[in-house]
Amino acid sequence: MPVSLAKLFIGRPVANREAEDLKLGVISGLPAMGLDGLGSASYGPEAALTILAATGAAGLGAIEPITWVILILLVILFLSYWQTIAAYPNNGGSYIVAKQNLGTNAGLLAAAALMVDYLLNVAVGISAGVGALTSAIPALHPLTLWLCLGILIVITVTNLRGTRESGLAWAVPTYLFVASLGFVLAWGSYKIMSSGGQPQPVVAPPELPKAAAGLTLWLLLRAFASGCTAMTGVEAVSNGVGAFREPRVRHAHGTLAAIVGILGLLLFGIAHVAQAYGVMAMDQTQTGYQSVLSQLVGAVYGRGWFYYVTIGSVLAVLCLSANTSFVGFPRLCHLVAEDGFLPRPFAVPGRRLVYSVGILFLATGAGGLLIIFGGITDRLIPLFAVGAFLSFTLSQAGMAAHWRRALRDGPASSLTGRHTDRAKLAINGLGALATGIALAVILAAKFVEGAWLTVIVIPCAIVLLRAIRRYYDDVDRHVLRGSHRRIDLATHGSPVVIVPIKRWDRLARKAVEYAVRLSPDVTALHVMSVGGPDAEDRQDALRREWRALVEQPAIRAGVAPPRLQFVTSEFRSVVAPLLRAVEEVQRRYPGGQVMVVLPELVEGRWWGYVMHTNRERRLRARLLRYGGPRLAVTSVPWQLREADPAEGIAEEEPPAAPEGTPA
Amino acid sequence: MPVSLAKLFIGRPVANREAEDLKLGVISGLPAMGLDGLGSASYGPEAALTILAATGAAGLGAIEPITWVILILLVILFLSYWQTIAAYPNNGGSYIVAKQNLGTNAGLLAAAALMVDYLLNVAVGISAGVGALTSAIPALHPLTLWLCLGILIVITVTNLRGTRESGLAWAVPTYLFVASLGFVLAWGSYKIMSSGGQPQPVVAPPELPKAAAGLTLWLLLRAFASGCTAMTGVEAVSNGVGAFREPRVRHAHGTLAAIVGILGLLLFGIAHVAQAYGVMAMDQTQTGYQSVLSQLVGAVYGRGWFYYVTIGSVLAVLCLSANTSFVGFPRLCHLVAEDGFLPRPFAVPGRRLVYSVGILFLATGAGGLLIIFGGITDRLIPLFAVGAFLSFTLSQAGMAAHWRRALRDGPASSLTGRHTDRAKLAINGLGALATGIALAVILAAKFVEGAWLTVIVIPCAIVLLRAIRRYYDDVDRHVLRGSHRRIDLATHGSPVVIVPIKRWDRLARKAVEYAVRLSPDVTALHVMSVGGPDAEDRQDALRREWRALVEQPAIRAGVAPPRLQFVTSEFRSVVAPLLRAVEEVQRRYPGGQVMVVLPELVEGRWWGYVMHTNRERRLRARLLRYGGPRLAVTSVPWQLREADPAEGIAEEEPPAAPEGTPA
Repeated sequence: MPVSLAKLFIGRPVANREAEDLKLGVISGLPAMGLDGLGSASYGPEAALTILAATGAAGLGAIEPITWVILILLVILFLSYWQTIAAYPNNGGSYIVAKQNLGTNAGLLAAAALMVDYLLNVAVGISAGVGALTSAIPALHPLTLWLCLGILIVITVTNLRGTRESGLAWAVPTYLFVASLGFVLAWGSYKIMSSGGQPQPVVAPPELPKAAAGLTLWLLLRAFASGCTAMTGVEAVSNGVGAFREPRVRHAHGTLAAIVGILGLLLFGIAHVAQAYGVMAMDQTQTGYQSVLSQLVGAVYGRGWFYYVTIGSVLAVLCLSANTSFVGFPRLCHLVAEDGFLPRPFAVPGRRLVYSVGILFLATGAGGLLIIFGGITDRLIPLFAVGAFLSFTLSQAGMAAHWRRALRDGPASSLTGRHTDRAKLAINGLGALATGIALAVILAAKFVEGAWLTVIVIPCAIVLLRAIRRYYDDVDRHVLRGSHRRIDLATHGSPVVIVPIKRWDRLARKAVEYAVRLSPDVTALHVMSVGGPDAEDRQDALRREWRALVEQPAIRAGVAPPRLQFVTSEFRSVVAPLLRAVEEVQRRYPGGQVMVVLPELVEGRWWGYVMHTNRERRLRARLLRYGGPRLAVTSVPWQLREADPAEGIAEEEPPAAPEGTPA
Repeated sequence: MPVSLAKLFIGRPVANREAEDLKLGVISGLPAMGLDGLGSASYGPEAALTILAATGAAGLGAIEPITWVILILLVILFLSYWQTIAAYPNNGGSYIVAKQNLGTNAGLLAAAALMVDYLLNVAVGISAGVGALTSAIPALHPLTLWLCLGILIVITVTNLRGTRESGLAWAVPTYLFVASLGFVLAWGSYKIMSSGGQPQPVVAPPELPKAAAGLTLWLLLRAFASGCTAMTGVEAVSNGVGAFREPRVRHAHGTLAAIVGILGLLLFGIAHVAQAYGVMAMDQTQTGYQSVLSQLVGAVYGRGWFYYVTIGSVLAVLCLSANTSFVGFPRLCHLVAEDGFLPRPFAVPGRRLVYSVGILFLATGAGGLLIIFGGITDRLIPLFAVGAFLSFTLSQAGMAAHWRRALRDGPASSLTGRHTDRAKLAINGLGALATGIALAVILAAKFVEGAWLTVIVIPCAIVLLRAIRRYYDDVDRHVLRGSHRRIDLATHGSPVVIVPIKRWDRLARKAVEYAVRLSPDVTALHVMSVGGPDAEDRQDALRREWRALVEQPAIRAGVAPPRLQFVTSEFRSVVAPLLRAVEEVQRRYPGGQVMVVLPELVEGRWWGYVMHTNRERRLRARLLRYGGPRLAVTSVPWQLREADPAEGIAEEEPPAAPEGTPA
């Protein structure tokens, strides 16, 4: 077996029938679908506190009320998405929901918003994770960007290998995160109670900054807008119901409930403990930066080994929260591509049943964002919130439209059914209203800080998506037009064959033999790129060989002898002389077919591409592009390594490995 | 015309006959071939001073004697290379000289040493240039690595465009560098004289560091070894004689003399002025770093506008000294590749008459070195000196062997000729001896600091070069074996044809029409990747279309009707079912030929690769690799954009643009 880099990094191909085994339950679904949602607990409250920092102690007092508003919004979202999952058991992402209920334009708007959202989720998750890491080990602070990019690469490769591995490998840190952070928050709350609201920190957080600004309503709105990023990721489950085991809906509902419940407790706990202990957000660009969670764990429990375990799990979960996007983004792109709004490669499942193109696209985009914003979380937050809430709103509005239609079109008889539908309409309508208001607040509060960028990017993306669809429609129309005519058997006749040869060797002989088999009119073309006395000698030698080895045997066998022709090329290109020869033949035989037979050395091993100039590949592409409609190109291979079809089949379709075998 | 990114960045293709116009004279050759040599003046003395810094004032006193030794070595090198140029007017690089006179192994050793040398010259030149820049603008110090990589990219693109542009565009900074630095050194020398050796600095350099170590012989040897990097680049001219205008040798000699003369004056001036003004090297990793030249210009003339002009030209020349490697490295790779020791793509001139693969390889390698060593000059110096002096020594030894053979084999009559040859032998022998001793000193003095890396890399490179040559020899033997048999016309007969079709459209129709033209035995293969009721409907529809549009017309025309066959594929791959069909045919007709006819949509515009899955391309590669020796693959194109051969020819061979037209 040749060395296969793809197999080494990506693993063996996966058959369709194995697909079921890779699917998720609640226990494995919580990490795969919920890391984003749970991870938000680390940067959401911190983002709100960053805005409040300017107002000092007064600002810190505002974090609990703001969190209550966020929690109410979270419950509304939870109910809405619960209904979405039940109504769309085949991946009811906001793209599908908006498209089916509000029309294509709304669907594309939702898709564009979601894509931006997924992209930013990766960047924010990783940068916040690295923020936790540099809090624990300040010496790493100057390496922030490099750490971000390294983590991104690891996640990308893991995802190219397939969904199940992601689910299981991420489970340990997720549950460790929930357990350790939950313990810290519970212990902190207990100490707050037992000390009558005045707990003594083990490691005191930095002093609160002086109030540089007053606590205005505008500032509260901005803090709320930033804090809303704590909710991002809740939609992931509804977007990937298809990744769950049967019964899908039950598993998806269970996973959603677990995510929202845990997230709500964490958000409340963080706000409560941070306020009592006087923990405020710091500036990530400055050395000495400590994330809110790092300060919090230190204040509640000190900086012993438990601190490092907790921060380690925060790091892991935050970085891996990016993983949710790696499940959702390629799946969304696949749906959009199947509708023809994205290039087809996005719709093709790769060797491991994952959509590799989508994964690579996401990784590239997120890497770009991390580089541009230097891996600083706070700079990415404004862009992030807009995309997330735009898609929330569209999804909820779509569901509301769905129930309204169900009410209008449904059977009038079932009164209880109609009551249920009305209740559902109310819930999703409330969801749409609440997220819509939140979106308006975010847009207004964050416009100058970067939301404007999202406002520009999303319409551009929609225009691009529409242009792609138009392209495919054009191609389809072109290719199908008049295809229902019968095949034409009148212009039956052999093509005129041209064989470019470099010298007389076994490749050339095989190609000429093949050409003679197909047509009585064969011309071999030898292109000389430079003149000189040496070139003439070689020309003479080739002419002699041709006469003895090709012409005479053909004449003796009563076959029309193939001709040998020499041409010079000034530009070191073989393409132009060949195209000229093709043009010449087409002029001589109007309506006749031309075939170029290319002798091709096939290396087979991976270094073949490096060792050979691959002139044939380029030649073939140029001929197909410029040779006109009456030209066909035949490759006659000469394999350096013997290989037969069975070997190729085995490589494409390996026998299924038994369960538990490391892939 | 479609948008061509290659044309935009690289420029239009260049014809062979234009090659002469791109060649160099002395005035244009000095920057193109000499930037490396001249640029060495900035880092060579500084590298020596870096070693001496530990000994304080005593060390500074040693710089002038060390420079004298270096100058003597430089004169020996000059005389040696003068002779090499005359004896090898077709690119007498040390590879050619060593190979022809000392055998293949010595040649490969020289080639490997030179490649390492070229690579390091790029890295050192750029990092030293950025060192000059951050001396002048200390705020840029944290960006050192990014600046290095940015400059590397600019140089790479410039070189992909062709030699002449490099020669002319680099001329202004080179001559500015020589003039301004020459003026500073002359002015400094005048002030030293007029002040009786005690000049008053305009801007005082930092105080001399305290002597932390004594001035031992070992330290002097290490300083000399580092200082030897000031000589690197002198070989560039002899390595690229072919790039000069006729009469080549005279132009090359003139260029070499100009380079060595100017370099010698600069080295002497720097040592003299630095010693008198008390200028010592600083640590580039520390903020506040000032290069030796920056301190020197400041001390002699102050930091007015002239300081910035001088440092600007130093920056330009140092960065662009890397350019010498971009002329020499691809040329060397081309020579080595023509001998079969490097992959063939290195030997192919690109669109603009430059060896693009070599340029890209060099850029990648230098980028890697800069990233690994963080763009710090001093860390690269030990690796640099070894490669350079190894190739110096081999080149001189090769020339000595050349003259010895000339003495032995030459006509006994011409006594004066023999005397001249003896003198030449003496000069090159002296050169070999001197550079060999210097090499031994460098290896001993720099082994721990990094020279060991070069000592490992060079033998590995030689093993690789030999393996590549063995591979080509094997391929050649394989392909030529038995090629002198006559062509076989006995197994004359049509191939069995298989046409994979996705659906019935114009592509499929054209492919089937073509197949019927070539063979009476045609089977169309439809691969269904997933089952389901929808798939069955499509299958039925296709069967009906086939009967009406293909079978019945064929029967009516008296042609054997093509068959339609359905297969399912579990792994979403079309390759395996096709290979299975090929295997089946080969079992049924032992010795018969099989042809797969692929309908192929040709987009032609640059986004085609993005918009289509390019399944055909992969399919074709797999078939050629695994289909066995009796399979051929024919591509029947369907062009989305009408294009004819003339258009393709025009793109490959544009009419020559008049002189002075921007390319």
